[in-house]
This record gives sequence, structure tokens and C-alpha cells, in this order.
Amino acid sequence: MSEFCYYRKINYYETDQMGIVHHSNYIRFMEEARLSLLQQIGVPYDKIEEAGVLIPVLTVSCEYRKACRFAQTLRIVVKPDFFNGIKMKLKYEMYADGSDELSIRGESGHCFLDKQMRPVRLKRDYPQIYNAFAKWQEEYNEVK
Amino acid sequence: MSEFCYYRKINYYETDQMGIVHHSNYIRFMEEARLSLLQQIGVPYDKIEEAGVLIPVLTVSCEYRKACRFAQTLRIVVKPDFFNGIKMKLKYEMYADGSDELSIRGESGHCFLDKQMRPVRLKRDYPQIYNAFAKWQEEYNEVK
Amino acid sequence: MSEFCYYRKINYYETDQMGIVHHSNYIRFMEEARLSLLQQIGVPYDKIEEAGVLIPVLTVSCEYRKACRFAQTLRIVVKPDFFNGIKMKLKYEMYADGSDELSIRGESGHCFLDKQMRPVRLKRDYPQIYNAFAKWQEEYNEVK
Amino acid sequence: MSEFCYYRKINYYETDQMGIVHHSNYIRFMEEARLSLLQQIGVPYDKIEEAGVLIPVLTVSCEYRKACRFAQTLRIVVKPDFFNGIKMKLKYEMYADGSDELSIRGESGHCFLDKQMRPVRLKRDYPQIYNAFAKWQEEYNEVK
Repeated sequence: MSEFCYYRKINYYETDQMGIVHHSNYIRFMEEARLSLLQQIGVPYDKIEEAGVLIPVLTVSCEYRKACRFAQTLRIVVKPDFFNGIKMKLKYEMYADGSDELSIRGESGHCFLDKQMRPVRLKRDYPQIYNAFAKWQEEYNEVK
Repeated sequence: MSEFCYYRKINYYETDQMGIVHHSNYIRFMEEARLSLLQQIGVPYDKIEEAGVLIPVLTVSCEYRKACRFAQTLRIVVKPDFFNGIKMKLKYEMYADGSDELSIRGESGHCFLDKQMRPVRLKRDYPQIYNAFAKWQEEYNEVK
Repeated sequence: MSEFCYYRKINYYETDQMGIVHHSNYIRFMEEARLSLLQQIGVPYDKIEEAGVLIPVLTVSCEYRKACRFAQTLRIVVKPDFFNGIKMKLKYEMYADGSDELSIRGESGHCFLDKQMRPVRLKRDYPQIYNAFAKWQEEYNEVK
Repeated sequence: MSEFCYYRKINYYETDQMGIVHHSNYIRFMEEARLSLLQQIGVPYDKIEEAGVLIPVLTVSCEYRKACRFAQTLRIVVKPDFFNGIKMKLKYEMYADGSDELSIRGESGHCFLDKQMRPVRLKRDYPQIYNAFAKWQEEYNEVK
């Protein structure tokens, strides 16, 4: 997989009275794209939680370059930025309606916890999850 | 207490591109008003959940008579409609910025469950919660 | 078209601490299904708004029979209940993950306004929009 | 005014199935705090929009140090970071239930646009709005 893309049509209830998507919603779109990626690489998040692992968000940032609008379809590209089995960083780029012009750029940082909110080491304790992320990162770097 | 009122300022992110509050948000305002009522009558919902009781929503309805707008303050009146310790119905009326003209009318229906999602009989199993609701209903009917 | 179906995967941010979809979100899913229907019958809502017509929600109701959960895919069936070019009522049924067991039942009522929030008569003023709805209703009734 | 504080009780619908506030909601709390600040310094945002000025969000970032929970009351401190009448940056700190331990740290960056989405120079075109921000920044720096 050269690059992971998630497509998402913008809902009416995601606009605000400025006539554009409310800026908080892109944080939610990033989550949707991230969880769609997990499914794609074979570790869907509902199965991860069932296995006892949580992947909370530690940091998030978003740069709004071009407002998006109701009924547009966003192409959201997710890229691995860092992963070592203890922490993970992802980058996001959003493009509207087939355009090549970047609308939104985002980042999120994560750790891996058990149900008691204690850090887990994926490589040792959940090698299947570790390998899924590691393989995706490797493939991405090869193609890039 | 003759009548329970909850005051709520409308946030920018609750508007949509029609320039008014998105209709789904009033369902959330009803929840806020309901949980504020629970606190007022001495059984805050976080304590109810800690005691092992859930109060899910079975039905909800809303009638939109007059659109509300950003920066308005809603007065939300909550009224008891039915309560027998097994089921509960509440009614809601929302007024904007001190007006006497009804903007929104709503209803919600509820039951009482334990953590295994089995029905509980409040009167027998959680008399403190039962009495709080019963006393509120009684006082409301007396004043009315 | 015998029946209009809209498929929708449930997002993580649509759950609450009860571990199920927050009840307010189904009102949003109804809007998504409704606007997807409009697109399907040839009158996408962004084009309707561009033509100067708004379709606000006058009433909404929802009956929660079975809680839905993160990562489930909802099949949302939209049915015409009433349409005369001045008012419209729609019914919704939601089924989770291919099940035939009804999870959620909903209704919404609408009118048609111009940008000055005055009622419009679709049949006279916007026959193309009128015909799209009327044809859908007719086809639905024939198949039923 | 030494420091602007906005108090905000957390709603049930703002939690997710992890049992904590969904991370996207803090971006909305930042907006609430920011608009409450505008009201406090004499330039409420609804009046700013009526005057023809929009203050869109250009960047946002958030660091989640300690999860917040339903029924907690957040104290949100808003601090000026940069303001020159063309761009503005604000910082946010959130503390739960009277604690001195920082739960959430955030930042937002803004510009000032007219209704045609063209940049405006507040100092020249909207001196009243300019002066409100400048005075707040000055007072903050004096006290600090």
C-alpha cells in the first residue's frame, strides 16, 4: 500500500453559520481516517479494544488552509510519522472534491494503554498489533 | 420547587449553515436540562451510574416552532409527565432570551436498567432514587 | 426504486460512556439518510439551497429499541409518509450489521421555505423539485 | 483583569466509550472560552459578525495530559499569545474540579476577515474591536 486514503462526504450538520465545516469536525474526520486505516491494515479498533488495548490521543494539531463545505467529498491521506510500539504519530492531509490543493493538514500523537490505563509495550505484549503498524510504516517508506 | 428551569447559552458550533441551531442539538439540550434536574433533586446522574443504575432514552420527540440562534440564552423548563419507578416520561419547553413565546417543545421517555441492561424496580431496589423523583413529581403537581 | 437504503458505519466519537451510540446521533443519521435520498432522486440538497429553497425540520421523533455500537454498519431505510409540495413527512428504520431486527425507528416532518423563511409551494414555484419527490412517493407506493 | 477564566460543566453526550471526554470536544470548549472572553472584553462575537467581521480559526493544537470526565467542571484559562490586529494567537489551560493539575493545554491561531473572506486590518477598519483586544493583552502583560 503506497498511501492510505479515506473518502468522506461532508454532512449538513457539520457546517456552522459561517457556511463552512466547523473546525472541530476535522479532528473527528482524522479519527475516522485513522480507524479506517487500522481496519485496512488488519487490526480494526473494536478488536484492539476487545483485546484490552486503548489507543488514546495525546496530542492533536490542525492547520486550516482552505475551508471545506457541505456536500464536498474529502480525500484524507494518512501517513505514518513515527512508531516504535510505545508511541505513534500520524500525519493527515485533506483534499476536497478531487482537488490537488491541500485544504487541511493535521497531526495526531498516541500511546498504547491497557484497560487500567497503564502503558503497554506492543512489541512484547501484542505482537500482532505491533507487526501490523510496523509493516504499514515499512511499506510506506519503501514506496515513498 | 414549582417548576425546574435550566439556562443554556447557545454555542457557535451548535449552528449550521442555515444560520440557526442544528435541530439535533436540542435533543442534547434536553439531556443537559434533565441531568441538571437530577442534580437539583439530589440524585446527580454520575452518582446514579456509580450506584449501578442507567437511565437510557427509549423515545424522544421534538417540535421546532421557532429557530434559535447563536448567543441566545435558552430557558428550558422540564416537567414530569409520568413516573412509576419503572418508566419515566418528561416534557420540555424552551424559550429564547427571556421571551414567553415557545420556541421548542420536546418529550423523552426512559426506563431504569442495571449494568447488565436488565430492568430495575427503583421503588424496591433504589428507594432513594425513587423518592427523589416521586417527591419532585408530587411537588410539581401540587403547585400546578 | 422499491425502497431507499443508506448505509452508515458508526464512528467512535458517536459513542458515549454507556458504551453505545449517543441517542442524539440518530437524529443526525436521519438527516444523512434524507439528504442521500435527495441526491438519489435527482435533487441534491446543496442544489436545492442554491435554487433558494430550504427544507427545515419541523418535527422529529425517534424510538430506540436496540442500542447500536461502534463499528457496526447501519442500514437506514427511508420511506415517504406524506408529501403535497407544502409539507413532507418521512419515516426511517435502522438495522444494524445485516440484522432484520429493527434497532431504531424515526420520523421527521418538514416544510419548504425560501431564503426569507417564507413558505414556498413547490408544485407551482419549483416543479422540478416537486416532481422528484412526487415520483419517488409514487414509485414507493406502487412497489409496496 | 489578570486572567480570563471560563467555567464549563462536562455533559454526558461529550463522553465516549472510553469513559472520558472525547478529545474533539476540547476544541469546542476552547471556542466557548474564546467567545466568552470576547463578550467579557466588550466585543461579543455575534456583534462582531453583525459588524461584518469573521474570526476564523487558522490553526489549533491540543495536548491531552489528563482525561476529563462527565460531571466535572472545567476551569479554562485563556491567555493572549500574540495580537497585532491582523493575526491573533491564544493559549488555553484547562483544570478539572478545582485541581491545580493541568489537564489540557491548547492553542489557537486566527485572522480577521470580512464577509467576502478578505483580510481586514482591525486597527484601521474596526478600531473598537482592535482596542478591546489590545487593552486585554496589555492588562494581561501588566499583571503577569
